[in-house]
Amino acid sequence: MAVGEQLFPAMPEVGGIRLGTACAGIRQNERDDLVVVEMQEGSACSAVFTRNAFCAAPVEIARDHLQNTPRWLLINSGNANAGTGNRGRSDALETCSALSEGCGGVAGQVLPFSTGVIGEFLPLEAIRSAIPTACARLSGRGWRDAARAIMTTDTREKGSTRRCEIDGREVIINGIAKGSGMIHPDMATMLAFVATDASVSPQLLQRCLQDAVSGTFNRISVDGDTSTNDACVLIATGASGVDIESLDSGDGMRFRDRVREVCAELAEQIVTDGEGATRVLRIQVEQAASDEEALCVARTIATSPLVKTALFAADPNWGRILAAVGRAPVDGLYINAVEIWLGDLPVVSHGGVAEEYSEARAAEIMSRDQVKLLVILGRGTCAETCLTCDLSYDYVRINAEYRS
Amino acid sequence: MAVGEQLFPAMPEVGGIRLGTACAGIRQNERDDLVVVEMQEGSACSAVFTRNAFCAAPVEIARDHLQNTPRWLLINSGNANAGTGNRGRSDALETCSALSEGCGGVAGQVLPFSTGVIGEFLPLEAIRSAIPTACARLSGRGWRDAARAIMTTDTREKGSTRRCEIDGREVIINGIAKGSGMIHPDMATMLAFVATDASVSPQLLQRCLQDAVSGTFNRISVDGDTSTNDACVLIATGASGVDIESLDSGDGMRFRDRVREVCAELAEQIVTDGEGATRVLRIQVEQAASDEEALCVARTIATSPLVKTALFAADPNWGRILAAVGRAPVDGLYINAVEIWLGDLPVVSHGGVAEEYSEARAAEIMSRDQVKLLVILGRGTCAETCLTCDLSYDYVRINAEYRS
Repeated sequence: MAVGEQLFPAMPEVGGIRLGTACAGIRQNERDDLVVVEMQEGSACSAVFTRNAFCAAPVEIARDHLQNTPRWLLINSGNANAGTGNRGRSDALETCSALSEGCGGVAGQVLPFSTGVIGEFLPLEAIRSAIPTACARLSGRGWRDAARAIMTTDTREKGSTRRCEIDGREVIINGIAKGSGMIHPDMATMLAFVATDASVSPQLLQRCLQDAVSGTFNRISVDGDTSTNDACVLIATGASGVDIESLDSGDGMRFRDRVREVCAELAEQIVTDGEGATRVLRIQVEQAASDEEALCVARTIATSPLVKTALFAADPNWGRILAAVGRAPVDGLYINAVEIWLGDLPVVSHGGVAEEYSEARAAEIMSRDQVKLLVILGRGTCAETCLTCDLSYDYVRINAEYRS
Repeated sequence: MAVGEQLFPAMPEVGGIRLGTACAGIRQNERDDLVVVEMQEGSACSAVFTRNAFCAAPVEIARDHLQNTPRWLLINSGNANAGTGNRGRSDALETCSALSEGCGGVAGQVLPFSTGVIGEFLPLEAIRSAIPTACARLSGRGWRDAARAIMTTDTREKGSTRRCEIDGREVIINGIAKGSGMIHPDMATMLAFVATDASVSPQLLQRCLQDAVSGTFNRISVDGDTSTNDACVLIATGASGVDIESLDSGDGMRFRDRVREVCAELAEQIVTDGEGATRVLRIQVEQAASDEEALCVARTIATSPLVKTALFAADPNWGRILAAVGRAPVDGLYINAVEIWLGDLPVVSHGGVAEEYSEARAAEIMSRDQVKLLVILGRGTCAETCLTCDLSYDYVRINAEYRS
């Protein structure tokens, strides 16, 4: 299940990037599950990774290899290579070597990424055999195939693209992502790969990525569970010949905004395709004393199973929202100052139901694909937004049957 | 649904306590939904309440009235009188007055408690009319009827009793509780009423209650949502003539242990009867650097929807447990030192699957009514235990249909 309709955008090529996919039969044989991404020489590459202490073997290796001016990404779905100890690390290195041998590079320039079931060893032979096919298929037009090959419980490919005019010339920013369950990013998220043909120094690129991720991927939650394999990569090939020399100039800010928009669209697509999702809730918390406070209230609502089952039922059970706000760890919350709005309908004010509240109107708003919730704390000027989806029968089914 | 069989214990009378129930038809007409508890003069009464900032009107009133040597508890199910603002508070006071008029007491000596739907006003007239019936039925043998009348989505009555020999004489400790959803107590919990015929000073009684609650009710979670109406009351009537003068003497410690056991049994009954529960998971975290750290890891596992759906499916998907441990906010966790055991089966060691692991054995353990999970952090000597239940289709159904 997934919320609403969503068409994969027409994605232009990004100069300097080629993508190729193949079927290694890691978990299923019907579709491609292996992706090679090639970056042209001189590309800058930045990445952020999960903060989960039990991070997967490929995350450890990718973090190491990031220092070596990477030239390739090697991504597999169907197996997360997480919880696999030392053997998991040597397996991940093995796959890097296999790819680099085929491409004439060195293993240290390959960043490995895995997503899928935790606790099983990688089928090394299958991956090794599929790599030549993926390499042979490398093409600048491979974005959609790659977006499809990295899916696990996702029901649709996720992609976003932006053009940005810098100094009269155009740069492209493309991104793809996967993620549907175990989504509560705390640093980076799931797997997301964004590339531009602008030329950006590694330092600026890293800052640009961290900025973008913190306001987008780090503001979504499907089930409150932070993955062991989250990673988000931003590549700048420089193929357009356009230089981004600062993120704070007019041009730089425009570029940064476009990167952020790509990340925001991908993050939203992940929630929309959350496991079992039938509805998306956008939670805006305003007038908080600090950003942390606003975020903490928004996340408490976003992870409440009671709020999420009410959303599934399109039941405007605002008592559950109020209970979630009330249990968020905010010191000295003055409940009479709190207001809650559903869409444009006042729901709670002065510690109780608002005079203008109408159950029928609220039920109508709750029954939409996209529901907006506004919580005003009356304590300051800070605001944050989180996105979450509902908790449905299908969420339970998908996760009860996941390994069967 | 509920886990396993559970018989309500034969509860002896507690000298000085009488209970009476009546049907006020607050939400349904088929069963009693109003309880009056009378304590004999001179009884000491202590209580702990929810820390939810949006605490319900009766919680605020009960907290106030606790200063006035309370003589009566007035409890209704079907309506939480939460999120009801000023009118909610004056309604709660009204019910106190109605009861005190019938009993010849004063309103300030009544502690009101409500549980049920949030955001609706109390049906005052219905409660007023039912109070005389409840008073007329006051009896020392009313424990089970009271346990039944306070239920909401609970499927069975919860009760526990202990005898404790002090100085050659016997005192009784009885407790009843309700709670099935919105269970993640942070201070006290749901509604729980415990009474003894020992004589205990209000100060000692409060300490005894806080001790008992922190290790029992505050260690369970059904859905991670802390209620607006949680409250736990401990009454000491002194009717046995047995004085508890200290909690640190041999007698005092024995008494304290029995109170703790009653609370632990009630807490366990709540999880066992968690909304949609088919299985209970007991999570023990050992070798933590601090109690807080142990508790935090245990709670992260206990509230993980992925762990809870795997438990429902009896799927030993230990990758999800490992991912939950990894995302718990523990600084510098050394994952190679972490061990995970399911029952007596080693599952994870040295950052990967344990050599002795057997999927078939693990599946057999996961399919039991009661599953034991042990997580060894290898950082220190502190330990904590949490109880949780699985996340099933029925949890979603119950909470999607709750108000319909």
